[in-house]
Amino acid sequence: MEGRGSVLGENVRVIQELFTPSVQHTLDLVGIFVFAISGALLAVRKNFDVFGIAVLAEVTALGGGLFRDLVIGAVPPAAFTDLGYFLTPLLAALLVFFLHPEVERIQLGVNIFDAAGLGLFCVAGTTKAYEYGLGLTASATLGLATAVGGGVLRDVLANEVPSLLRWDRDLYAVPAIVGSTMVALCIRYDALNTFTSALAVVTTFMLRLLAMRYHWRAPRAWHRRSTAVEVAE
Amino acid sequence: MEGRGSVLGENVRVIQELFTPSVQHTLDLVGIFVFAISGALLAVRKNFDVFGIAVLAEVTALGGGLFRDLVIGAVPPAAFTDLGYFLTPLLAALLVFFLHPEVERIQLGVNIFDAAGLGLFCVAGTTKAYEYGLGLTASATLGLATAVGGGVLRDVLANEVPSLLRWDRDLYAVPAIVGSTMVALCIRYDALNTFTSALAVVTTFMLRLLAMRYHWRAPRAWHRRSTAVEVAE
Amino acid sequence: MEGRGSVLGENVRVIQELFTPSVQHTLDLVGIFVFAISGALLAVRKNFDVFGIAVLAEVTALGGGLFRDLVIGAVPPAAFTDLGYFLTPLLAALLVFFLHPEVERIQLGVNIFDAAGLGLFCVAGTTKAYEYGLGLTASATLGLATAVGGGVLRDVLANEVPSLLRWDRDLYAVPAIVGSTMVALCIRYDALNTFTSALAVVTTFMLRLLAMRYHWRAPRAWHRRSTAVEVAE
Repeated sequence: MEGRGSVLGENVRVIQELFTPSVQHTLDLVGIFVFAISGALLAVRKNFDVFGIAVLAEVTALGGGLFRDLVIGAVPPAAFTDLGYFLTPLLAALLVFFLHPEVERIQLGVNIFDAAGLGLFCVAGTTKAYEYGLGLTASATLGLATAVGGGVLRDVLANEVPSLLRWDRDLYAVPAIVGSTMVALCIRYDALNTFTSALAVVTTFMLRLLAMRYHWRAPRAWHRRSTAVEVAE
Repeated sequence: MEGRGSVLGENVRVIQELFTPSVQHTLDLVGIFVFAISGALLAVRKNFDVFGIAVLAEVTALGGGLFRDLVIGAVPPAAFTDLGYFLTPLLAALLVFFLHPEVERIQLGVNIFDAAGLGLFCVAGTTKAYEYGLGLTASATLGLATAVGGGVLRDVLANEVPSLLRWDRDLYAVPAIVGSTMVALCIRYDALNTFTSALAVVTTFMLRLLAMRYHWRAPRAWHRRSTAVEVAE
Repeated sequence: MEGRGSVLGENVRVIQELFTPSVQHTLDLVGIFVFAISGALLAVRKNFDVFGIAVLAEVTALGGGLFRDLVIGAVPPAAFTDLGYFLTPLLAALLVFFLHPEVERIQLGVNIFDAAGLGLFCVAGTTKAYEYGLGLTASATLGLATAVGGGVLRDVLANEVPSLLRWDRDLYAVPAIVGSTMVALCIRYDALNTFTSALAVVTTFMLRLLAMRYHWRAPRAWHRRSTAVEVAE
């Protein structure tokens, strides 16, 4: 952080002050909670026991940030220093354990919160990576990894093809890429503040909601051979 | 380690002296060996070649400790600085390569040693994480991760659902959670010494043996939908 | 690096000067590019969308080096500090996205380049690990991990058994083990220079080509039970 020019450093300080720790922390916990719900629900679908539900909730919620922290050298990672980060997924796991039919029924609500988590994590991840001295492209990439990494680990542990990579799912990464890129551009043009950060979060959130509403998909490779397996929707 | 109060630091020193390096090291190698056997046996079942057997032995034996060391910032990890840690799994792989029907036949013996490895690793992992300055909850979590992480990596590389997470397997993580928690409580109440450490190892070991003997299982989520796939035992 | 004897340190310096940064960097980018092609091709076969193709290209190309850098404590890893490392896989992904039937048709050419990448990565990985103070065995192991790690991550993300571990694939790791070991022995006997490094690269490359040409396989465990699943070639 010290190596940065004072103007950009000032930006980062401003955002840190405006997003006071308690506000930022609360938003983090919200994102962690909703991601944990998605992990716990997959664990129930895979017929895991209560311990497996807790593990998948923890991994989904904290995996992306853990990867980011290992890459930027922020050890021990936040996932292991903040008790709230650790306990929140357990709460989500308990909730799903006892009430999962009810939670499944409000899947739409879960998805909306998940979209909010996506926005919060990609912005927070990009900002933190930049604070640790990474370049703009690397910071945006790590912001994306923070937002989607937990879900990839969740699917790998559940022995499924990561839904992030499948063509037959609504756009998930692209909204996060847009959000991370917005933060990187704001840093580049010296315009990162509470308002622009919030704008990046909201843009990611809205794009994800639109992708779900209108089933936006990303294209697959051109000229696919007819032997390619078509996955039914 | 320096940041800890002198009393707790004294505890850690005492255990380090009583468990002299050679004793601790020997116990570590025993744990590594039995974990490597379980990895090599799965590799044979998956029809891997001799190289695949060696890789799965190494990953199963060292994966949990490697993860812990990356998280606490102990780089290079012990897996890469201690030649014995690296060579022991190769020995186990060779043994299974040439004698796997015999090793399979003594599966019960392997399971008993594996239970011992579980106890040793969760206690050693919790203690090491605490020495590196992590909190009690984080230390216990990393102790658990040290004990079960290698097995999870083994199953992911073999493209199987981690047996740790499946409901139709006898309790495996819960004994390790009990052992890690005992160590953390001993540290908290200033009672960590050779005796209490050994007690935590033995408790984990016995709980795992009982879980195997009586097929203890953890509960799955309440109100599972009838469509959930029931896995036959 | 500082802790090494001056003679070995001198060796490392010599190789660093002879392989001038631009030559080394160009070779790195070539290796990254061909590994990325293999990741992108698998993504197309798995029917991933354009984003999945890019992710698998990045992971395949950079995963091995990323693992090495995390283990030796070189954070942030080269994958996140060198823009060329990040952009090259995207280029490969685009190429495969638009032209994958043509790329598949030159599969032999891709395989030859991949063999070259294998040689380059295992030599560069071993050298870098040694520079960061690891022992000779650990350095050779990390050289191997640098060369094959990306492919393993690629297969795990694609939810397949890593082709590295399957007995029904031509030798892949063994050439890299030979190359890494050659580098380690050269360091040990104070003979690492441009010529011996190039020799290790070429040896790995040729062994891999021969393994593909003559379908060399590694043996599986002795006395396999007849129930073992025989995978048809």
